[in-house]
Amino acid sequence: MRLVLFEHRGGFFRGVLEGREVRLLKDGAGLKEIVPTDTVVSLDEVQLLAPSLPSKVIALGLNYRDHAKELGMALPEEPLIFLKPSTAVVGEGAPIIIPPMSQRVDYEAELAVVINHAARNVPEEEALDYVLGYTCFNDVTARDLQQKDVQFTRSKSFDTFAPLGPWIETELDPSDLRVRAFLNDELRQDSSTKNLIFRVPTLISFISRIMTLLPGDVIATGTPAGIGPMQPGDVVRIEVEGIGSLTNTAISEER
Amino acid sequence: MRLVLFEHRGGFFRGVLEGREVRLLKDGAGLKEIVPTDTVVSLDEVQLLAPSLPSKVIALGLNYRDHAKELGMALPEEPLIFLKPSTAVVGEGAPIIIPPMSQRVDYEAELAVVINHAARNVPEEEALDYVLGYTCFNDVTARDLQQKDVQFTRSKSFDTFAPLGPWIETELDPSDLRVRAFLNDELRQDSSTKNLIFRVPTLISFISRIMTLLPGDVIATGTPAGIGPMQPGDVVRIEVEGIGSLTNTAISEER
Repeated sequence: MRLVLFEHRGGFFRGVLEGREVRLLKDGAGLKEIVPTDTVVSLDEVQLLAPSLPSKVIALGLNYRDHAKELGMALPEEPLIFLKPSTAVVGEGAPIIIPPMSQRVDYEAELAVVINHAARNVPEEEALDYVLGYTCFNDVTARDLQQKDVQFTRSKSFDTFAPLGPWIETELDPSDLRVRAFLNDELRQDSSTKNLIFRVPTLISFISRIMTLLPGDVIATGTPAGIGPMQPGDVVRIEVEGIGSLTNTAISEER
Repeated sequence: MRLVLFEHRGGFFRGVLEGREVRLLKDGAGLKEIVPTDTVVSLDEVQLLAPSLPSKVIALGLNYRDHAKELGMALPEEPLIFLKPSTAVVGEGAPIIIPPMSQRVDYEAELAVVINHAARNVPEEEALDYVLGYTCFNDVTARDLQQKDVQFTRSKSFDTFAPLGPWIETELDPSDLRVRAFLNDELRQDSSTKNLIFRVPTLISFISRIMTLLPGDVIATGTPAGIGPMQPGDVVRIEVEGIGSLTNTAISEER
């Protein structure tokens, strides 16, 4: 099932994708309450939004060996986490705004995990029970500020630096999915989640021993090698096998 | 005016403190809509909660010279920010849970700023217009994990690691307030916000050029020298001049 959040004629709705149509879902108490209605609209008539409104995005640093190597950083012994604020999240088609504070803003293709209910101290064996589904993520990063600050927070937290979407695919095995980034249709990143150093169940279990994961929260699982800068006008497409593609265009912030 | 959030007979309410009594506020659309009602309850009969439910806590690293020195770290040229998740926030009297993952959990006394309405690209001269008020903050930190990870996120993000309270003081000049931490009634930190490297208006302006600040969001302004570990049973009190005190007791996490 592919779950979407969308805008249509000024209203905001949840829906489930059926080919090129979207069936509205009944407003429910929780993300898991999926009750279809009789109302269907064409996908062409709606504006897709980020398919989840997370209270937090927990992202992974250096979770593919080849990416750690290209940055010249040592592999972490344990998952290395950082946070991106909810204000950075945007959906399919939204612009990525390059801020005046940075001279180099990079794309980073990732598989994102969306949590379905509160998770705290979850064992690895049960971790996938806490997953609503999966979507594509672009962990946009101001590389110059990341290197300057050492702390990742500023470089990862600008508004629009967390494109997420286009939908949540609820039936998917995350263990071997091709993850790719295209810059203006040129392939730049190409790997598989089988190359993750720390896999999805390990990540959920580890993070849930630190902080309670809430429904809708997103775990961005890390990016493979091939990261690079975007210029204003560049179109970046993140593709994750079994999900689809997330496309955003970089623009300059108006002064 | 001192704004509180509290629990009373199973309900959750906003109120304004009047001596030892709390006057309920009418439920409003926003934090700024402060409409008193005729209902008053005794402070002794309510359970104070964290006075804001922030979408994010933006905290400052190394914002007092003496603290940077005690950690052996260089002073930042610009504000050094990190995020704490909303799931870490607790209020007056709540326990600080020491997780099994860490062998050293420290207190850090701070002045916290609470935002009143959405702030984006705010000039320093207008920054204080975006402040609802001020409260006390304990930037609880797993020091061993902070040193291991280099990234601050894990060490600062455990549930209960962001005590905030007891209330929001709306009439206060943040430029020279004494900030103290007491461990079991012994003074351990003692400085003033006049020693901040980056002051409150600078912080708001800087952060708002990175990410949109939302109503209720919290900026934790950094801690002075004197940080140290807490053991289970230790009582930590953060006092900020003109606000009051925030008291929490450390306990071990049940296995």
